[in-house]
Amino acid sequence: MAINIADYIRNVPDFPVAGVQFKDITSLLLSPAAFSDTIDRMVAHAGASKPDCLAAIDSRGFLFAAPMAVRMQLPLLLIRKAGKLPGETLEFDYSLEYGNSTLEIHAGDITPGHRVLIIDDLLATGGSLNAAVSLIEKAGGITASIGVVIELIGLGGRDALSGYHLFSLVSFEVDE
Amino acid sequence: MAINIADYIRNVPDFPVAGVQFKDITSLLLSPAAFSDTIDRMVAHAGASKPDCLAAIDSRGFLFAAPMAVRMQLPLLLIRKAGKLPGETLEFDYSLEYGNSTLEIHAGDITPGHRVLIIDDLLATGGSLNAAVSLIEKAGGITASIGVVIELIGLGGRDALSGYHLFSLVSFEVDE
Repeated sequence: MAINIADYIRNVPDFPVAGVQFKDITSLLLSPAAFSDTIDRMVAHAGASKPDCLAAIDSRGFLFAAPMAVRMQLPLLLIRKAGKLPGETLEFDYSLEYGNSTLEIHAGDITPGHRVLIIDDLLATGGSLNAAVSLIEKAGGITASIGVVIELIGLGGRDALSGYHLFSLVSFEVDE
Repeated sequence: MAINIADYIRNVPDFPVAGVQFKDITSLLLSPAAFSDTIDRMVAHAGASKPDCLAAIDSRGFLFAAPMAVRMQLPLLLIRKAGKLPGETLEFDYSLEYGNSTLEIHAGDITPGHRVLIIDDLLATGGSLNAAVSLIEKAGGITASIGVVIELIGLGGRDALSGYHLFSLVSFEVDE
């Protein structure tokens, strides 16, 4: 029987701030069947864009990108919050759904011209993913595709990333 | 030919502060063969302790625990830095090699009596792993085993966790 991934994602109201309906993936990770199925489906979507490597966004993106990279036998590079990467970095400042942040990439981790599949757990306004795209392109890479487990509809994320191939496994409508 | 995982771990001097020799696993993740081999070996070590679930420490622990959980078909629970988990949490304050931190666990993620395999990238002083052990036991779990990719010898980490089964894939001597 097919697994409905949405059934494994818990909604937590008013986290991290009042008014936000937080989509919690920890409940998905607790089910080996649902988590494996999530990785299978992400890998199935990912192949068509013929990536040379995967980029995982700090830190929930790590949970999905790492098993995908092992399965696909592709290099995994990290897009991290400021101050976490020890080597020479490129950085990008951006606004989040709530607050501001900076993402960084190791400048030398991307082979110029390589096709990069960017992975995160969730697309909301697209701020983090847009920062990731900018970093990859600044480092000489090509955005092959953007993959998320959860897409929130109504926050403009897909529009913010128009022009890029984007896939998601489940989507939720958000009232604003 | 056997892969020597230590060859894929880059040493970065004076990160994040002067005097620290930082062991960088991003170079390991960029090699699909070395990263897969790391997961294979971690899984091989892990089986003997017969875990019921895996606990991943925020955030580099996610990179190793997630592929292990998929491979072992076991539930994955997260031990996160303060303010990241949306549900009801237990928390533990501790000192790091440099600075202080708080780790949290979703109180309901552990079935009392279940055997938990704790995964992180690195053992230094044992502060984070000791916090993880405390949280798991407070939630009613049993520490089946502690697994890290890298063990730093000379910082007292193994002593801080004496009484627990601990495995590591590679070790480096540290002068202090």
